[in-house]
Amino acid sequence: MIRAPRPTTESYAETTHLVLPNDTNTLGNLFGGQLLKWLDINCAISAHRHCKRLAVTVAVNHVGFDRPIKLGDFVTIKSHVSRGFSTSMEVWADVWVEDQQTGEKIMVTSAIYTFVAIDQAGRSCTVPDVIPQNDEEQRRYDGALRRRQLRLILSGKMKAEDANELKALFADNKS
Amino acid sequence: MIRAPRPTTESYAETTHLVLPNDTNTLGNLFGGQLLKWLDINCAISAHRHCKRLAVTVAVNHVGFDRPIKLGDFVTIKSHVSRGFSTSMEVWADVWVEDQQTGEKIMVTSAIYTFVAIDQAGRSCTVPDVIPQNDEEQRRYDGALRRRQLRLILSGKMKAEDANELKALFADNKS
Amino acid sequence: MIRAPRPTTESYAETTHLVLPNDTNTLGNLFGGQLLKWLDINCAISAHRHCKRLAVTVAVNHVGFDRPIKLGDFVTIKSHVSRGFSTSMEVWADVWVEDQQTGEKIMVTSAIYTFVAIDQAGRSCTVPDVIPQNDEEQRRYDGALRRRQLRLILSGKMKAEDANELKALFADNKS
Amino acid sequence: MIRAPRPTTESYAETTHLVLPNDTNTLGNLFGGQLLKWLDINCAISAHRHCKRLAVTVAVNHVGFDRPIKLGDFVTIKSHVSRGFSTSMEVWADVWVEDQQTGEKIMVTSAIYTFVAIDQAGRSCTVPDVIPQNDEEQRRYDGALRRRQLRLILSGKMKAEDANELKALFADNKS
Amino acid sequence: MIRAPRPTTESYAETTHLVLPNDTNTLGNLFGGQLLKWLDINCAISAHRHCKRLAVTVAVNHVGFDRPIKLGDFVTIKSHVSRGFSTSMEVWADVWVEDQQTGEKIMVTSAIYTFVAIDQAGRSCTVPDVIPQNDEEQRRYDGALRRRQLRLILSGKMKAEDANELKALFADNKS
Amino acid sequence: MIRAPRPTTESYAETTHLVLPNDTNTLGNLFGGQLLKWLDINCAISAHRHCKRLAVTVAVNHVGFDRPIKLGDFVTIKSHVSRGFSTSMEVWADVWVEDQQTGEKIMVTSAIYTFVAIDQAGRSCTVPDVIPQNDEEQRRYDGALRRRQLRLILSGKMKAEDANELKALFADNKS
Repeated sequence: MIRAPRPTTESYAETTHLVLPNDTNTLGNLFGGQLLKWLDINCAISAHRHCKRLAVTVAVNHVGFDRPIKLGDFVTIKSHVSRGFSTSMEVWADVWVEDQQTGEKIMVTSAIYTFVAIDQAGRSCTVPDVIPQNDEEQRRYDGALRRRQLRLILSGKMKAEDANELKALFADNKS
Repeated sequence: MIRAPRPTTESYAETTHLVLPNDTNTLGNLFGGQLLKWLDINCAISAHRHCKRLAVTVAVNHVGFDRPIKLGDFVTIKSHVSRGFSTSMEVWADVWVEDQQTGEKIMVTSAIYTFVAIDQAGRSCTVPDVIPQNDEEQRRYDGALRRRQLRLILSGKMKAEDANELKALFADNKS
Repeated sequence: MIRAPRPTTESYAETTHLVLPNDTNTLGNLFGGQLLKWLDINCAISAHRHCKRLAVTVAVNHVGFDRPIKLGDFVTIKSHVSRGFSTSMEVWADVWVEDQQTGEKIMVTSAIYTFVAIDQAGRSCTVPDVIPQNDEEQRRYDGALRRRQLRLILSGKMKAEDANELKALFADNKS
Repeated sequence: MIRAPRPTTESYAETTHLVLPNDTNTLGNLFGGQLLKWLDINCAISAHRHCKRLAVTVAVNHVGFDRPIKLGDFVTIKSHVSRGFSTSMEVWADVWVEDQQTGEKIMVTSAIYTFVAIDQAGRSCTVPDVIPQNDEEQRRYDGALRRRQLRLILSGKMKAEDANELKALFADNKS
Repeated sequence: MIRAPRPTTESYAETTHLVLPNDTNTLGNLFGGQLLKWLDINCAISAHRHCKRLAVTVAVNHVGFDRPIKLGDFVTIKSHVSRGFSTSMEVWADVWVEDQQTGEKIMVTSAIYTFVAIDQAGRSCTVPDVIPQNDEEQRRYDGALRRRQLRLILSGKMKAEDANELKALFADNKS
Repeated sequence: MIRAPRPTTESYAETTHLVLPNDTNTLGNLFGGQLLKWLDINCAISAHRHCKRLAVTVAVNHVGFDRPIKLGDFVTIKSHVSRGFSTSMEVWADVWVEDQQTGEKIMVTSAIYTFVAIDQAGRSCTVPDVIPQNDEEQRRYDGALRRRQLRLILSGKMKAEDANELKALFADNKS
C-alpha cells in the first residue's frame, strides 16, 4: 500500500532546552552526549508526527559540534522528516543558541538521524514520502538518497560498487 | 611537537549499564538517544585516557541500531581510540548485550565518534597517534582516514574532489 | 526609564515533552508536579525573551488539571508574556496533548505564572509592557490587572478594599 | 456515604530536601519549578494519608516565592489537608529554610494545592472532612470555602455572582 | 575545646519518599542502592543538624534489607545522631513503609552510618556528644563504642587485640 | 541441588563513572550516597553474572570512605563475588580514581555487600560457590565466613556465642 506523501510541516517539532549544571563538562560547556539525546527525542517526535506510529532510531548519520554551548544557554532544536523511503525516514534537526542580550538565535549545528516506523509487535511499517516546502528542504530531500547509500555501506549492508548515487557524487565533484 | 604514539590498550574504557524504565520507549526497548549519551561518555573517557587532556566531541560519524535492547538488560560498552590525527581522535565503541541465562555477550552495534583534545582555555591541542594491538584495530586504523574525509565533506569543510582516499574507495570497489 | 512595549511574539516559547515512566503515578498518568516544573521552565524562557534578563518565579497564580495525561503522550507547552507591570510579568502557558493516531492537538489546560526580572546582584529591574497580537492575548492582557490584585491580596500585600478592579468584578458580575 | 472527619494530624507529611546544582539557576538559587514539584509530591502524600486513596492534583491555587533559596540549603516542607469537600481536598504546605550556623528554621513561603481522591478506574471518590487542631489550622479551614469559589471562577466552572463567600469578602473588606 | 553535648532531638531528620519506576528492579521492588542513597542524605542532614557543620560520610557500618519495598510505596526515613566521638558521629536511620489502606507504618530496616564534621578547608572538626532521650536511644548510645571498634578493625585502623569493648562482647555473650 | 563452583572471573564487573555536579556536596566532592548507589548496581551485576539470576541486596557489610573524590574525576569500580553460601553471595567492590595527568589509578576504597539470588516469584535460590583466582581473592574467600557471622549478629539473627569463627578471631588476634 502506497500512502500519500505529506508536507514537511506535518513533522515539524520544536523544543527549547536550558543547559543545567549536570549537562556540562568541567569547562562549563554542554556535553555532546546530552545534545545527542535531546536530538534523538526531537527527531523521534518528528518521525512519529510524519507517520503517526511509534518510530525508533536505526542510525545517526552525522552530527557535528562546531562551537561550545554554555551553561545557562537556551538551546532550540527544530526538526522535520526530510525524506521517506519504504519503511525508513531521514530526519534533520537544526540547533540554535540564543544570545542572552539581543535574543538573536545563532545556528550552531545540524544533525541527521534515520528512523523506522514500527507496529506494536515491533515489525517495520511502510511510511509516506515527504513534500518539501522550501529550497533548503528540497536540497535535503535530494541529498537523502546519497546519504542512505552511505549509511548502508558503513553498516555493511550495501557494496560500494552498487552505490550509484554516491559514485556519481565523486565523479561529478558535487557535495 | 610530535608526541610518541600510544598503544590502544591505554585508551580502553569499559562500562556496564542496566536499562532502567526511564531509558525505554513504550515497547520497553532502550531509546536510541540514551545509548548515544552512554556511548559519548564512554568514548570521552577513552579519548581522555589516550591524550591525558579534556576531550570534547566534534562529531558522531556513524551509529547503527540493529536490534532492540530490552528493559533490565545489561549493556556493556567497550571503547578505544582507533587513530590520532593532528588534534582530533577517532574513537570506536562496541556494544554488547548479555544473555540473562547463559551470560553470553552478543555484540549489537558499533559506533564511531570524533573528539578533539583541548586545554583549559578551550584551545585544541596536539594528540599522539595510536599503535593498534590486533587485526581488528589495524583495520579500524586503516579506514580512519577515509572516514575523516567523509566527515569533512559532510560538514562542508572539504570538497569531494580533494578526498583522494574516498575516491579510491569507489574506484576500487572496496569497502 | 520606560522601555518600549514589545509584541507577544517576542516571548513565544514552545516545547514538546515525552511523558516517561518516572513522570507518572501508579495509574500511568503524568504527575501534576512534573507538569508544574515543565510549565515553570517554559514560562521562564518566555519571561527572559521578553525582558532579555534573568527572570525568576514570584508566584503561581493558577493552574488547573482537568484531564489525565498518559505515559508516552507528547505534551506541547506554548507560553507568552501576557502583560508587563513595573518589574513583574504575567506569563500564560497553554498545554496540548497530541492524539497519537490523528495527530490532533487537544488543549488540556492553561497556567498563569508571575515572574520578575533581576540583575546579577539579584535586584529587580524594570520590564517593558506587552502588545497583544490577537483577541485571546488582548483578553489575557485586560484581565491581568485583576489577577495581580488577587495575587497581592492572597500573599497579604494588598487589602481587599484597595483592589478596585476586583471589587468591580463582583459588582459587575463579569468574570 | 458520609465518612467521619479526621484530625489534621493524620495528614501531616514532612520532607527535607537538599538543594543540588541541577535545582538552581545561574545565580545559584533554587528554581521555582523544582520547588513546585517537591510541594506537589508532599501535598499528594498528605492527601493520600487523609483519604487512604490515590490522590491527584486538580489545581494549584496559589504559591508565592518571596525570598531566594540557595544551593546547599536544607528545605523542609510540612503539609496537611486543610479542608475536605465532597471529592476534593485543599492542602497547605509550609516551606522552611534552615540557617546553617544556628539551625534556626525560617519560614519562606506557603502553598495551596487542591487534590481529588480517585479509585483504580480513575473515578473520583468521597473524602472525609478535617478537624483542625490549632488556631492556624482553623483559620485555613475557614478560608478554604472562599478559595474554592475563587478556583472555580478562575477555571470557568462558577460565575462570579454565585460566589457568595467571595462577594462577602469584598463587601466586608476582610481578607 | 569540648563542646556541650546536645539532645538527640536536635539531630532528628525525617523524609518521606515515593518509590518511582526508576527506583525499582524488574520485579517492581526498590533497589538497595537507591535506599542507600536516600539513607546517606538523611543521615547527613542529622549529622549537620547535630554539629552545625558540613558532614561527610566516612563509613557505612551496617544496613540490612529484610523485606521488599514496592513501586508506589511511601518510604519514611527518620534519623538521629546516636553518639559523638572526637570528630566522628554515629548516625542511625530507621525506615518505615506505610500500608496504603490503613496508614499503618511498618518498620522495615535500620541503618548505621558514620560521618565526620569538616570545615571549608576539608579539615575534620570536634563534634559535641549526644544526650539520648529514651531507652532505645540509650541502647544505641551504649553500643556505639563497640561498633566503632568494629569499623576501625574492618578498615585496618585498629588491631583486634586492642578492641576491648568487642572482646568483652564475645566473652559476655551479649549482642 | 549443589551447583558446581565458578571462578571469580565469571562475576567480574567493571564500570567507569564521571563525577557530575549533582553527585557532589558544596565542597565539590562526591557524595557518599551516590558512590553507595553505584557500588550497589556494580555488585548486583557481579552477583547476577555469578548465579545467572536476579540478585537483590540483603546487606551492606562495610564501606569506608577514606579520601575525597572530586568533581570531574573518573571513578572506576571493579567487583566480583568473593564467596557463595547456600542462597547468599558476598560481593567485593574496589574503587579507583584516575590521575588526570598521568592516568595512574589510585585505589581509594573497598566495599562489601551481600546479595541473594531470587526467582520470579521472589523466592531465594541456591547459588554456586566461588573459586578464587589469586591470593587476594583467596583471602577474601577465607574471611567471608567471619563477616557473615558478624552480619547475622548485627541484624539479630545469630547470637554472639554461636559465632565460632569470630570468637576465634578475637582469641587469635588475627584480623
